[in-house]
Amino acid sequence: MSAPERFSGVLTPVITPFHEDLSPDPERFIQQCRWMLSQNVGLSVFGTNSEANSLTVEEKLDLLDRLIDAGIDPLKLMPGTGCCALGDSVKMTAHAMKRGCGGVLMLPPFYYKGVSDDGLYRSFAEVIERVGSADLRIYLYHIPPVSQVGLSHDLIERLVRAYPQTVVGVKDSSGDWANTEGMIKRGWDDFRVLAGSETFLLQNMRAGGAGCISATANVNPAAIHELYEKWRDPAADDMQAALDDICGVFQPFPMIPALKVASAHYSGDASWETVRPPLMALTAAQKATLLDGLKQRNFDMPGLAEAAIS
Amino acid sequence: MSAPERFSGVLTPVITPFHEDLSPDPERFIQQCRWMLSQNVGLSVFGTNSEANSLTVEEKLDLLDRLIDAGIDPLKLMPGTGCCALGDSVKMTAHAMKRGCGGVLMLPPFYYKGVSDDGLYRSFAEVIERVGSADLRIYLYHIPPVSQVGLSHDLIERLVRAYPQTVVGVKDSSGDWANTEGMIKRGWDDFRVLAGSETFLLQNMRAGGAGCISATANVNPAAIHELYEKWRDPAADDMQAALDDICGVFQPFPMIPALKVASAHYSGDASWETVRPPLMALTAAQKATLLDGLKQRNFDMPGLAEAAIS
Repeated sequence: MSAPERFSGVLTPVITPFHEDLSPDPERFIQQCRWMLSQNVGLSVFGTNSEANSLTVEEKLDLLDRLIDAGIDPLKLMPGTGCCALGDSVKMTAHAMKRGCGGVLMLPPFYYKGVSDDGLYRSFAEVIERVGSADLRIYLYHIPPVSQVGLSHDLIERLVRAYPQTVVGVKDSSGDWANTEGMIKRGWDDFRVLAGSETFLLQNMRAGGAGCISATANVNPAAIHELYEKWRDPAADDMQAALDDICGVFQPFPMIPALKVASAHYSGDASWETVRPPLMALTAAQKATLLDGLKQRNFDMPGLAEAAIS
Repeated sequence: MSAPERFSGVLTPVITPFHEDLSPDPERFIQQCRWMLSQNVGLSVFGTNSEANSLTVEEKLDLLDRLIDAGIDPLKLMPGTGCCALGDSVKMTAHAMKRGCGGVLMLPPFYYKGVSDDGLYRSFAEVIERVGSADLRIYLYHIPPVSQVGLSHDLIERLVRAYPQTVVGVKDSSGDWANTEGMIKRGWDDFRVLAGSETFLLQNMRAGGAGCISATANVNPAAIHELYEKWRDPAADDMQAALDDICGVFQPFPMIPALKVASAHYSGDASWETVRPPLMALTAAQKATLLDGLKQRNFDMPGLAEAAIS
């Protein structure tokens, strides 16, 4: 196993397929991951849009093992490993390292609110010290609209200084471009700032960012990756506008069930629609509006069916 | 095992002691629980103030087993069993039932925000159906300041109607008396409304509530239980004021480390001060102010030392 390179480009929080009894379906999960890789999209499995926090640690470790055992390159994997309990974060992160993952995406503990930077520093530092792997590459996960526990620039700087070879990037899902730009401007050495949505991809590349981790890349991977490749192109603004147009079809709906509706429709496999509580599937009317919006744009998910076969 | 009676009275989210390496200390945990029972305070172990969401499922199951194996009456136990992942909530709740616990306190899944009542209903219903125990008594845990996922009265009513022998009460930690009173006024049959703090104990008893689950009962159990017993007394308002006075000494500080400082000081066991990240211990100055405030009020924790010996 070679030491992992730092991530750049487009990754996606891979949606997690469930059986009707709500257990995870490893086969369709492998299929989705293979399709993503065929579209040059990296695998940020167990992210927010993966319903990761509705999965037990055991379920996630099993899914990770099955991906890698099925031949998925672990260096393309950036599993989410940050949990509320220290022991869970350590267990998940250590397992990801054991399996050679290219990095991990780490939420802070998110139950207790109003905690201090000192407390959050201590949380991340304990995980790093206990895992104790020179190959560990952590991408911090800043998503205050959901976690309600944000990561300040000062906290990140303190972690980068203490662990420069370990704390190597961030996913910024604040939706606040000024926050993303502010991190880039800090100029931490080779620090990878990944926007939390492709909406900010072009802005992020122009400002010196490293790419994005995009929920919509689950369904629209090729076009998002193309903008990453061609962001210096004169057509880049038009490409961004086209991405935003597709993203806008999803935005009126809860994102996770909406992504799953598209996957179900374009793969021909209705079981993709299943979500775990507390989420609910889209209503029939929501589904119709979403799919109609995609149809109007001649949207497609080419290659998905072939990935299922291979 | 007899079918559990519904809880009333005073319970506490028992603080969880840690060793220096941050592992839980079952011996001091048993001691604290014994002391609580000797003061007529029930055991809502694994609540918010127990740092429960900084503990893994395995750590909690082990602590629960050790309490019961040490002779703690399971009917006095109302462990917190609500987790983000369905499988974890089912595992914890089923284990609590297997061990004969009097009830469980159940948080909703708290990572995903803005979820619907339908989604939350589905979450609780799945746990109930999967555990499938006639002895299961659930107390719903409404704590929007921390969980950021609240339980509406309509949601609770729907659960009470669907599972009248199972969904039997609520802990209201909203800090909003109108919300607590509103639930009592709904008049659900024999439904136990427990205030989330002793600050609302007298109001709650006068309105027809069942008692409280109080963090401060970890350190001031006898006085809180006395008000529960004597709420019809002419002196009740003075007793409530005295409770509020003690609670007010703790309130300027983060509650969990403050409770632990008091436990450490009055038990003579400094190791009580250890908290898990993301929490931080009080600073020396905070400790001094807190302990000075308690000393000024001739505060004591009588019987704690004896519980340690027994």
